[in-house]
Amino acid sequence: MARSSIAKKAIQQLTAPRPLTLPSQASLTHRACLTTTASVQATPVHPVTQDSTSKNGPTAMVFMNMGGPATTDEVGNFLSRLFSDGDLIPLGRLQNFLGPLISKRRTPKIQKQYAAIGGGSPIRKWSEYQCAEMCKLLDKMSPETAPHMPYVAFRYANPLTEDMYEQMFKDGFGQGRGGRAVAFTQYPQYSCSTTGSSINELWKWRNRLEGKRASGEMHPEGSITWSVIDRWPTHPGLVEAFAVNIEAKLAEYPENIRDDVVILFSAHSLPMSVVNRGDPYPAEVAATVNAVMTRLGNKNAYRLCWQSQVGPSAWLGAQTSETVKNYVKRGQTNLILVPIAFTSDHIETLYEIDLEVMEEDAHNNPGVKRAESLNGSPIFIQALADVAKQHLDSGMSCSRQMGLRCQGCTSERCLESKKFFAGEQAYTNPAFVM
Amino acid sequence: MARSSIAKKAIQQLTAPRPLTLPSQASLTHRACLTTTASVQATPVHPVTQDSTSKNGPTAMVFMNMGGPATTDEVGNFLSRLFSDGDLIPLGRLQNFLGPLISKRRTPKIQKQYAAIGGGSPIRKWSEYQCAEMCKLLDKMSPETAPHMPYVAFRYANPLTEDMYEQMFKDGFGQGRGGRAVAFTQYPQYSCSTTGSSINELWKWRNRLEGKRASGEMHPEGSITWSVIDRWPTHPGLVEAFAVNIEAKLAEYPENIRDDVVILFSAHSLPMSVVNRGDPYPAEVAATVNAVMTRLGNKNAYRLCWQSQVGPSAWLGAQTSETVKNYVKRGQTNLILVPIAFTSDHIETLYEIDLEVMEEDAHNNPGVKRAESLNGSPIFIQALADVAKQHLDSGMSCSRQMGLRCQGCTSERCLESKKFFAGEQAYTNPAFVM
Repeated sequence: MARSSIAKKAIQQLTAPRPLTLPSQASLTHRACLTTTASVQATPVHPVTQDSTSKNGPTAMVFMNMGGPATTDEVGNFLSRLFSDGDLIPLGRLQNFLGPLISKRRTPKIQKQYAAIGGGSPIRKWSEYQCAEMCKLLDKMSPETAPHMPYVAFRYANPLTEDMYEQMFKDGFGQGRGGRAVAFTQYPQYSCSTTGSSINELWKWRNRLEGKRASGEMHPEGSITWSVIDRWPTHPGLVEAFAVNIEAKLAEYPENIRDDVVILFSAHSLPMSVVNRGDPYPAEVAATVNAVMTRLGNKNAYRLCWQSQVGPSAWLGAQTSETVKNYVKRGQTNLILVPIAFTSDHIETLYEIDLEVMEEDAHNNPGVKRAESLNGSPIFIQALADVAKQHLDSGMSCSRQMGLRCQGCTSERCLESKKFFAGEQAYTNPAFVM
Repeated sequence: MARSSIAKKAIQQLTAPRPLTLPSQASLTHRACLTTTASVQATPVHPVTQDSTSKNGPTAMVFMNMGGPATTDEVGNFLSRLFSDGDLIPLGRLQNFLGPLISKRRTPKIQKQYAAIGGGSPIRKWSEYQCAEMCKLLDKMSPETAPHMPYVAFRYANPLTEDMYEQMFKDGFGQGRGGRAVAFTQYPQYSCSTTGSSINELWKWRNRLEGKRASGEMHPEGSITWSVIDRWPTHPGLVEAFAVNIEAKLAEYPENIRDDVVILFSAHSLPMSVVNRGDPYPAEVAATVNAVMTRLGNKNAYRLCWQSQVGPSAWLGAQTSETVKNYVKRGQTNLILVPIAFTSDHIETLYEIDLEVMEEDAHNNPGVKRAESLNGSPIFIQALADVAKQHLDSGMSCSRQMGLRCQGCTSERCLESKKFFAGEQAYTNPAFVM
């Protein structure tokens, strides 16, 4: 259903009228945009292009991720938002009551974990760095969409989606001034619980701040035109960045045993209820793993395992913790753990893998190591720029795959949000409509 | 554990004495081997090379698969073997008692299913055709290992592994005459329940007929040297063969809706107990799907779903049947079903997909179609030859990945069988030992 109705919608919208005004100042730089904010607000003519079907900049590049508390004081709010997210943890009608309750109970334990990794998550630092560096590359690689302005929108921590949106208004996007923005998920593999949740949140705030709830109409004149980079599990640059970090770790073993080292890819698990609903994540994570092993020439044996299961319900396995325990028990003590579904360090690497798995499960065995997270890897940042450039050139509003709801999906929010973003095809670049 | 002990074993065996005699008649053709069987049996000098470390032919190419009953009369024995297989359906110590019991109860129902598809499975016809055609190609592509002699070894139907082994003896392999054989799994993606089971069965019969049980020693002089092609989930030729059959089916839809067709890849499911043990199959199936979609340019939305669940225990989903029902209910009636984990037609395509899913679940909706199975596809047969050629050139006894037991594995049979086949590296081509 989703796809064909979306296609119809897109085609109808192709004929919808869209504002056109002077692209005169379109060449102003990002810095200029930021410093002239005040005056910009006052004048109807603005550096942000008014023709949202043109490919002129500036272009807002918005990194979407779950985020993490920067200090232990932020853990409470972080968990409260996390457990209130029905896309991540479906608690039904009791969500808004149970969410805060569960999070309050878990806060002290999680605060200790963040304290153990230095008091907070580095994910904001890395996200802002990666996005800013990518934008610098994009300004050179894609001058026709420059300047590229970096934004970060976290799902459960600052900066939240609404903060990002307000900042975009301050910088001259939307509110009658149009402009082009790309929502770039930082989860390489798509799950309804992660990228899906961020996209639904973006859709919610877009409607509240400049969509139907704000103005009464679905597409008010001069609203921001959005497109989405919704997945990139086997992009060659991403694969290369992972492979290079694994090779660096392999090089720490003596050459005569190097090929006997077992590579354990670890990704955040999902409840089986989500897997059985048709969530594409497990298949996309597996695709990344296969691509990385192919790039490494399959010289080592490997397994994909799943971490961070919580609660009594059934989750997808095999579990990372059990896997390491079993191999170490059998004497296979040369293991490299590879976080394959996050692009920077976070509690799941710094606490769960480094402390719980490597120290406790593997008893600090020197043969058990972890590949470095992508963090500031220049290969990775170049890959981000390549993914973005490819997306901007394609003129696509989102992937075909994003338009299809899971076979077991019953979420109206998912349906409407997918319709909206796929419908944006009518504005991103009609010439490119497939 | 597995890997390092295997490596040690292989290195020890490198120094083990191996028979060397005249390669004189090594150039005799396959046909000659077969027709001269009687005389061959009589003479100690034989066309099969006596130097198993050389790369001279003949080379036995053994296609391993589950097989299927050729007639409804064979269903009983087929099911009896299937339910007696602890690698496929672990019933513990009661296996030999419960297996026949369950199979007897299910036989009439399954006989009806085979009757509905014409009285038997076409899998033997296709396997023998594919193997013979591949051998013809290999004789040209790899003259140094020619002639390539085609064999089929099914796990639950004729020809069984022991029949294949006896035929190889008749054709002049083993029994003091050495010779080289390649066990080529016809499951592109590795599961302990499928390829693992066939490999364990091959190991069992090898030991009974020419190994330690037959002669008292592990590696009697002139026994057959085995190597294994244990997985090939993303081989470009395999991917191309799948993609071409999907494109042919897409071409049956009007061009204006072609990109809105949803592609549903369907693979045989696994019990969650096997998935959680660390079975590599779900990840390898997902890798095939991603490679095929990449080859197709991701112009269509898709899902990977799982079929053939039986019994009360939890299996990996989403289920193919439910998926089709849900999409059809939502009005998404343009669906192409793609059997992605079998290489020829069998009961799961001809009965389960064509009759149960397409007729019953999709009410014969004309928009719901199935991509043709690979069967006689020349692209697929060329791919088989490419995979085999690559294996023969590599000199590897099996993949690194095959040497690693699942993290949750407790099967001694798996351990010993893996040790044996990885140990064959000492004979296949020591020069190529990694």
